[in-house]
Amino acid sequence: MNDSRVQVGVKKLPMHLQSSQNRLLIKGGKVVNDDRMFTADIYIEDGVIRQVGNQLSIPGGVRIIDASGKMVIPGGIDPHTCFESSCFGLNTSDDFYSGTKAALAGGTTTIINCIMPTQSSLLDMYDKCRQAADAKACCDYAFHFVLPQYDPKVSKEMELLVKEKGVNSFRVFLSNTNNMLIDDGDFFEVAKRCRDLGAILQVHAENGKLVKILESKIYNDGITGPEGCLYSHPEMAEVEATHRALSLAESAVCPLYILQVTSTKAAHQISKARWRGNAVVGETLAAALGADGTHYKHNCWRHAAGYVLSPPLRANPCTPEELMRYVSTGVLECTASGHCTFKADQKALGKDDFRKIPPGVNGVEDRMSIVWEKGVMSGFMDPCKFVAVTSTNAAKVFSLYPHKGRIDVGSDADLVIWDGDMTRTISVKSNHENVDFNIFEGLHCHGVPLVVITAGRVVLEDGELRVTQGAGRFVPASSFSPYIFERTKRLALVSFYSSFVFIQFKNI
Amino acid sequence: MNDSRVQVGVKKLPMHLQSSQNRLLIKGGKVVNDDRMFTADIYIEDGVIRQVGNQLSIPGGVRIIDASGKMVIPGGIDPHTCFESSCFGLNTSDDFYSGTKAALAGGTTTIINCIMPTQSSLLDMYDKCRQAADAKACCDYAFHFVLPQYDPKVSKEMELLVKEKGVNSFRVFLSNTNNMLIDDGDFFEVAKRCRDLGAILQVHAENGKLVKILESKIYNDGITGPEGCLYSHPEMAEVEATHRALSLAESAVCPLYILQVTSTKAAHQISKARWRGNAVVGETLAAALGADGTHYKHNCWRHAAGYVLSPPLRANPCTPEELMRYVSTGVLECTASGHCTFKADQKALGKDDFRKIPPGVNGVEDRMSIVWEKGVMSGFMDPCKFVAVTSTNAAKVFSLYPHKGRIDVGSDADLVIWDGDMTRTISVKSNHENVDFNIFEGLHCHGVPLVVITAGRVVLEDGELRVTQGAGRFVPASSFSPYIFERTKRLALVSFYSSFVFIQFKNI
Amino acid sequence: MNDSRVQVGVKKLPMHLQSSQNRLLIKGGKVVNDDRMFTADIYIEDGVIRQVGNQLSIPGGVRIIDASGKMVIPGGIDPHTCFESSCFGLNTSDDFYSGTKAALAGGTTTIINCIMPTQSSLLDMYDKCRQAADAKACCDYAFHFVLPQYDPKVSKEMELLVKEKGVNSFRVFLSNTNNMLIDDGDFFEVAKRCRDLGAILQVHAENGKLVKILESKIYNDGITGPEGCLYSHPEMAEVEATHRALSLAESAVCPLYILQVTSTKAAHQISKARWRGNAVVGETLAAALGADGTHYKHNCWRHAAGYVLSPPLRANPCTPEELMRYVSTGVLECTASGHCTFKADQKALGKDDFRKIPPGVNGVEDRMSIVWEKGVMSGFMDPCKFVAVTSTNAAKVFSLYPHKGRIDVGSDADLVIWDGDMTRTISVKSNHENVDFNIFEGLHCHGVPLVVITAGRVVLEDGELRVTQGAGRFVPASSFSPYIFERTKRLALVSFYSSFVFIQFKNI
Amino acid sequence: MNDSRVQVGVKKLPMHLQSSQNRLLIKGGKVVNDDRMFTADIYIEDGVIRQVGNQLSIPGGVRIIDASGKMVIPGGIDPHTCFESSCFGLNTSDDFYSGTKAALAGGTTTIINCIMPTQSSLLDMYDKCRQAADAKACCDYAFHFVLPQYDPKVSKEMELLVKEKGVNSFRVFLSNTNNMLIDDGDFFEVAKRCRDLGAILQVHAENGKLVKILESKIYNDGITGPEGCLYSHPEMAEVEATHRALSLAESAVCPLYILQVTSTKAAHQISKARWRGNAVVGETLAAALGADGTHYKHNCWRHAAGYVLSPPLRANPCTPEELMRYVSTGVLECTASGHCTFKADQKALGKDDFRKIPPGVNGVEDRMSIVWEKGVMSGFMDPCKFVAVTSTNAAKVFSLYPHKGRIDVGSDADLVIWDGDMTRTISVKSNHENVDFNIFEGLHCHGVPLVVITAGRVVLEDGELRVTQGAGRFVPASSFSPYIFERTKRLALVSFYSSFVFIQFKNI
Repeated sequence: MNDSRVQVGVKKLPMHLQSSQNRLLIKGGKVVNDDRMFTADIYIEDGVIRQVGNQLSIPGGVRIIDASGKMVIPGGIDPHTCFESSCFGLNTSDDFYSGTKAALAGGTTTIINCIMPTQSSLLDMYDKCRQAADAKACCDYAFHFVLPQYDPKVSKEMELLVKEKGVNSFRVFLSNTNNMLIDDGDFFEVAKRCRDLGAILQVHAENGKLVKILESKIYNDGITGPEGCLYSHPEMAEVEATHRALSLAESAVCPLYILQVTSTKAAHQISKARWRGNAVVGETLAAALGADGTHYKHNCWRHAAGYVLSPPLRANPCTPEELMRYVSTGVLECTASGHCTFKADQKALGKDDFRKIPPGVNGVEDRMSIVWEKGVMSGFMDPCKFVAVTSTNAAKVFSLYPHKGRIDVGSDADLVIWDGDMTRTISVKSNHENVDFNIFEGLHCHGVPLVVITAGRVVLEDGELRVTQGAGRFVPASSFSPYIFERTKRLALVSFYSSFVFIQFKNI
Repeated sequence: MNDSRVQVGVKKLPMHLQSSQNRLLIKGGKVVNDDRMFTADIYIEDGVIRQVGNQLSIPGGVRIIDASGKMVIPGGIDPHTCFESSCFGLNTSDDFYSGTKAALAGGTTTIINCIMPTQSSLLDMYDKCRQAADAKACCDYAFHFVLPQYDPKVSKEMELLVKEKGVNSFRVFLSNTNNMLIDDGDFFEVAKRCRDLGAILQVHAENGKLVKILESKIYNDGITGPEGCLYSHPEMAEVEATHRALSLAESAVCPLYILQVTSTKAAHQISKARWRGNAVVGETLAAALGADGTHYKHNCWRHAAGYVLSPPLRANPCTPEELMRYVSTGVLECTASGHCTFKADQKALGKDDFRKIPPGVNGVEDRMSIVWEKGVMSGFMDPCKFVAVTSTNAAKVFSLYPHKGRIDVGSDADLVIWDGDMTRTISVKSNHENVDFNIFEGLHCHGVPLVVITAGRVVLEDGELRVTQGAGRFVPASSFSPYIFERTKRLALVSFYSSFVFIQFKNI
Repeated sequence: MNDSRVQVGVKKLPMHLQSSQNRLLIKGGKVVNDDRMFTADIYIEDGVIRQVGNQLSIPGGVRIIDASGKMVIPGGIDPHTCFESSCFGLNTSDDFYSGTKAALAGGTTTIINCIMPTQSSLLDMYDKCRQAADAKACCDYAFHFVLPQYDPKVSKEMELLVKEKGVNSFRVFLSNTNNMLIDDGDFFEVAKRCRDLGAILQVHAENGKLVKILESKIYNDGITGPEGCLYSHPEMAEVEATHRALSLAESAVCPLYILQVTSTKAAHQISKARWRGNAVVGETLAAALGADGTHYKHNCWRHAAGYVLSPPLRANPCTPEELMRYVSTGVLECTASGHCTFKADQKALGKDDFRKIPPGVNGVEDRMSIVWEKGVMSGFMDPCKFVAVTSTNAAKVFSLYPHKGRIDVGSDADLVIWDGDMTRTISVKSNHENVDFNIFEGLHCHGVPLVVITAGRVVLEDGELRVTQGAGRFVPASSFSPYIFERTKRLALVSFYSSFVFIQFKNI
Repeated sequence: MNDSRVQVGVKKLPMHLQSSQNRLLIKGGKVVNDDRMFTADIYIEDGVIRQVGNQLSIPGGVRIIDASGKMVIPGGIDPHTCFESSCFGLNTSDDFYSGTKAALAGGTTTIINCIMPTQSSLLDMYDKCRQAADAKACCDYAFHFVLPQYDPKVSKEMELLVKEKGVNSFRVFLSNTNNMLIDDGDFFEVAKRCRDLGAILQVHAENGKLVKILESKIYNDGITGPEGCLYSHPEMAEVEATHRALSLAESAVCPLYILQVTSTKAAHQISKARWRGNAVVGETLAAALGADGTHYKHNCWRHAAGYVLSPPLRANPCTPEELMRYVSTGVLECTASGHCTFKADQKALGKDDFRKIPPGVNGVEDRMSIVWEKGVMSGFMDPCKFVAVTSTNAAKVFSLYPHKGRIDVGSDADLVIWDGDMTRTISVKSNHENVDFNIFEGLHCHGVPLVVITAGRVVLEDGELRVTQGAGRFVPASSFSPYIFERTKRLALVSFYSSFVFIQFKNI
């Protein structure tokens, strides 16, 4: 494999971790990549897949794991978690340790964590988060950074993060989350900057001003409970901001990644924008595929508050299935958890005012099962597509492919032996996240990880999870992800004015 | 007829005008209303239609006009002119006299003029414009007001204009025309105010910030000619702002009127919004139906500059026909001229910088013919639909119906004897506007007004135009236009929260 | 009013009917036409509206009905009933007497009855049905004819029916109802014939072959109950045939009327076809607006069988509301009952085989209330639009306008005093139809006819229905309905080849 | 690689062919697969790729080809050619020799040829064609079979072809090409049969009856030239049949492959059908991407006739670009040539009657260049996507993957060294097809195959083409192509009735 990864402080594993389990043979499984399935053995050494095939020549002293009759899939990549983050001044309950432990328990072996700046310097924030994550993470991880505003300092720091720190994605808010709303002019400038740096621009798309106005109205009308979150974040607020972001990014000839789509109409906008020609990636959440907004009216306050996130789950009960259609037809290429958990006492800060409920839900542990149950078992997708939307696509988008997201010679040994017929019942009690509520509680679903291997080490087996705190490595993500930028670069050769004609004449 | 018009200083005609021509009989024409065509005589007395039918009993001393073999249609209503207005500090070349004269020459007997405030008080502006128009206008007229910004003073003046002055429509800019860009929050507040006053909110929909950014880029790239206007106002800037305005108005449960749509995709957004349930009216221009944006690249600067308006005509040559489809299927209910003319020396201010070209085109005299040629002769619409989109719909929308927009007992005697088979060739030389360029120059089209009658007086006959300066009356427009607001009022009975559920659950 | 109706044996009322009640004054109501509402008195003499306005000069001896505070609307027109018809060899339970009585009870004063030929000659069938209807009908009626097949004899009889008998609409089946399926080639020929005769082609759109195949499969799978009707008539069977019929009619440049649309996707096809340019009318049923397909799984066989019709009501519970959106936005212009009733013992013939359940539901009495409740009370339409979709549009389509469908001087005195705030609960017990099951049983709805007047006679008042058997008159319907054909005639001037270019180049 | 190919008479290469050139090393090229690009060497032995990577250990005696600075792509797969076929009783001018030679010259190394039965037995036809192709083909080939009608004999032969002969696709006509029109009922039965056999159903979608009617009309109107083909095959005839085929296949839960889509609206139907959930593959032609229907009006008869095919190229000049959008967004997954050539004297049979012009165009040699020029150079797709739509997707669909369509260890050594920057001008003079007219004549395009390798043998190099007649092997194609059927199999586990609910409830 051709390795062009930026070399940014990739941590060497300490000797004692390397010595054990450094040779593994997974025998007889059905290997599932995004392009095909085939029965083969997989030989792993020093955390890397060395051979894939039949009748391999294997050295002695190898531990053999029998996968016959099961699938072997690339470990999941969760492109959007919020471990050890903060919102409304509260710290999320899951840190890099509990969060990555839960990820592994569910079959996810790489996470991309959102860094929400609380320091004035993005680089200081980077150092702080690297330190925390290196000490705690049990699986490989990367970062994407929230841009609280846009100014020359931020612009300069973006460049350093991209060129020297292995960060290749930045996130802005059109919503007013944490008062970080960015206006159209700045959005355009950020888009140009990202395009020129080869970084992926991510947007949290809701019309922040409209939401603010509606929140006041609703609260003043005497509605104080969690359903107020639903009322004040109407679907059109998401659709409007999505449409606007797509339009502006298209004008800037900048690829765009729409985070946590919960509205089917927003998904439709993505589909239209892609047809017009820009590179656009849509992401939805396990929460949006596995639950809906009817919970906001649950008569238990804690239950209802447990589903508060932004944009919210939609009240129309057909939404999860329609979103799954958009996933299965390639419009929403990535499925994330958006894992951002708060405990009962934290959620309770909004007891008398829905505007103070910290938004966020769990999902990092259940994402793979939710997509399997709702996607594969319902006939929307086959196992290859499942691998694509839970792992391969994210690897391609964020320039981690094919080290991640594929079972092939030279790829990282992040693997899951997956039993698609086995079932489990999701419960906060059996899950590993540090939270006291699970939005999928009681859901009986197919698709269970039997064995999880991260960087060549078995961490889940026989129902037992044995992770190593700090074993996870930072994965530097290269700029100009070819999957996204190859075509954009070519578009840039075409001058603005011919591209204008292109848009005017041709984009009918 | 049931008259609920506000009585706001309706001017009495001076005696000498009343005496002549106060009894007319139009014989044998095919009366065309928006609902049907039928052969009948029309008897007019004192500016009002008194009888319509066959075998009428008519008093003596009546002037008889033979209309046999011709159509008799309600005089056109141009819902959007900019006479005696200003832009970029320049006065438009047509004032209330030349503008209304041209209107009558083309078969339009009522205009609604846009008042662009140059004074700090809207009420002062109203007085000033009333004075000017009362002295000069040759046909009936109404006003709509541009809101340069939104604040308590404007809010108060809106109320006075609606309740005491016969103004029922207000216009805001999402574009940055004359630096009047209004932000999303204020737009929402204006929408609420309009809804509560029963006034019609009109929006000039382009993303002003994006346009500004692109203008600079393009100018800095060395493009200084009129084609820069096309490049800096891409279709997506119009579509984005249209979508945003529709979303915000929908949230405020406020009807919305989208002015001068030139993009078919913006028209599509209107169609979608209407399906979702809000009351939405779309307007397009004669210019957009009869010409396209290929002119911006014309090698004669003055020619190219003659087509500059905002949003611009679109480069895709299929656009005019597609817009006509949206007109004929009822999505774009009104056709206006947006008549806003500047002469060669005024346009020339932008000789070296397209950003300084005053935007605006002619159309008030040719609008009726353009719609007939492109709509009826092409088979898109029948004569009833023609009457609807050139007259009746505007009358309904702006609460002027059925005094205007219909030939019926009790309606104002604003009539045109129309020859749909006759042709003429449009030329600046034969037109009556005070301008030195016509965007339709050389267009050979069917549909010619043979006789034009305004307020019972014949002003065009045998090819001769004989208007009376100052004969036109201000037409006060009532608030809560039933065509628009009847349903909105009912929607308001439904509480916000059930309407929310309605939107969330049902608007799939 | 200009009367161009064909004079086809219009029956004179017998003296005793004329003498009573021949002068009526309806005072103080809010007159609702499709274009506006206004308060006025209505003076009726000899079955015709003679004056509408305020301060009318009325002769003595006039009966006065107070309508103050109420609406006065044009009597409903039900464009599609199946009285005294047959299906599967069974006679429908409602004949012209009970059917028209029920129509009047619900505020419908004109019905267009579908004639299903059981004789070899269409003309014989015409005579037979005229005889039956003239003897029994309590309100005015017209006919449309089913064409069981297409051959030279049928072609000749079509001409006679159109030119001499006052029939202007013909219906064909793409479904295999009564084995009357017509193939694509014959459909095209019928379309050409209708176009040339100026008759309206109506189609019952389902893919008959697909339905047949599925019926066998399902029955053979052991499913024998009413739900089999739902399974064997999937939505795509309707959508496919609708799309095909629209395509073929468009090729033949023939207007098309799609009967009883129950699928929202079929409605969408109509919308698209209209945008392409052909004259297309969509009709839906009260049943489809007021009920859904979940009833097919009701555990009471008789209940489930009571909803069997073809195409069936759809299982998706959002369907009624979405269809109402299509009604309110003008895509589905007509609302019919499709009233075609069978009693319990007749339905029971399919007890062991759903394929033998005679298809048909009630609706003629409840149609107006259903549309009011679901359309006006929900905020989808205002009263003017209500009048349009329950009366005026049908009058225009079938060339009955403005005698029917409008309250105006010269129009037939078919009127209803309507209380939009009053409610009633629909029940088979209180209804007047000759049937033992009502698909709307128990529905509490707003909108009650207080007084119903047909041909100037009061038939419903103070809750009492007093109809006169045989008082209804046949209403001859002219060919070349201007509302439909005016534009088509113009299109025909354009040659096929330029229209081809038109279609190819322009219909993007 | 895991080889599950059916072993159906795979021909061994004769010794003299194997001995030469059996070891090749392609050095330093940028390998382009559909999932990524990377620089690597490729080592080939005995027609199979043995190693891909850097610093390979290569035995001696290897021929080295330098590819540095160039791309190395999987050889093209043309999923639809008509070599040595017949139409209207005429033999196509290209046989298996000239056809495959031209294919190789253009960078295509595998073709799937359409077998049009002229014998009563499909199996006899198979033998005949295998014999011809084995003797002449210069590159690997597979077959798909036209089903002239459907009956028990055909059904039985289908089974034998699938299970014993390596045929996995069947084609039917809804058009009436060669009078092979199949009706809806039979189409449904064929669909069920294909589904059960795991064969791919292909449809040539035009409404044959409508086309027939229009042909007569047009000819009778005096239009006899090639433009008559355009007029008689309107876009709606294609869209209608596409919609119908999709509906019926969906009802039969059978995957569907739509051949040679030339209408953008038909492509849109495919997109909608896929969203509803069925497995659907769309194919378009090089002709439709690189030319348009304006040629039908060319004043040179031979020129105009040269573009006659069915469905025809569309008159709207925006069509090619819009089709390319559908290709680039994954709706039209395969690009074929549909290569079916007739010489001037053959085309001339329709000199006086367009209905007799044999339909068909060239494309097998230019397909790769056309897609590169119109797709990659215009910025619609990157090189990975180019490989997908010219090779990989077809390999996946027809179960040839990853032996074909990918550069990987174990894959067939079918490779092209591709220069994306080099240009050539297409001309019938320089091409290798046996035809006297090229529809792309004069097109200057980027993208030239420098070296073409088929089964490990270099056939194009330094501009010289050296093919070996008969060296091509039949490639048996397995049934139940996982790419298509994996999900379908799962859907089949869901019973018809729950899938019905799925369709009814969920497919909104």
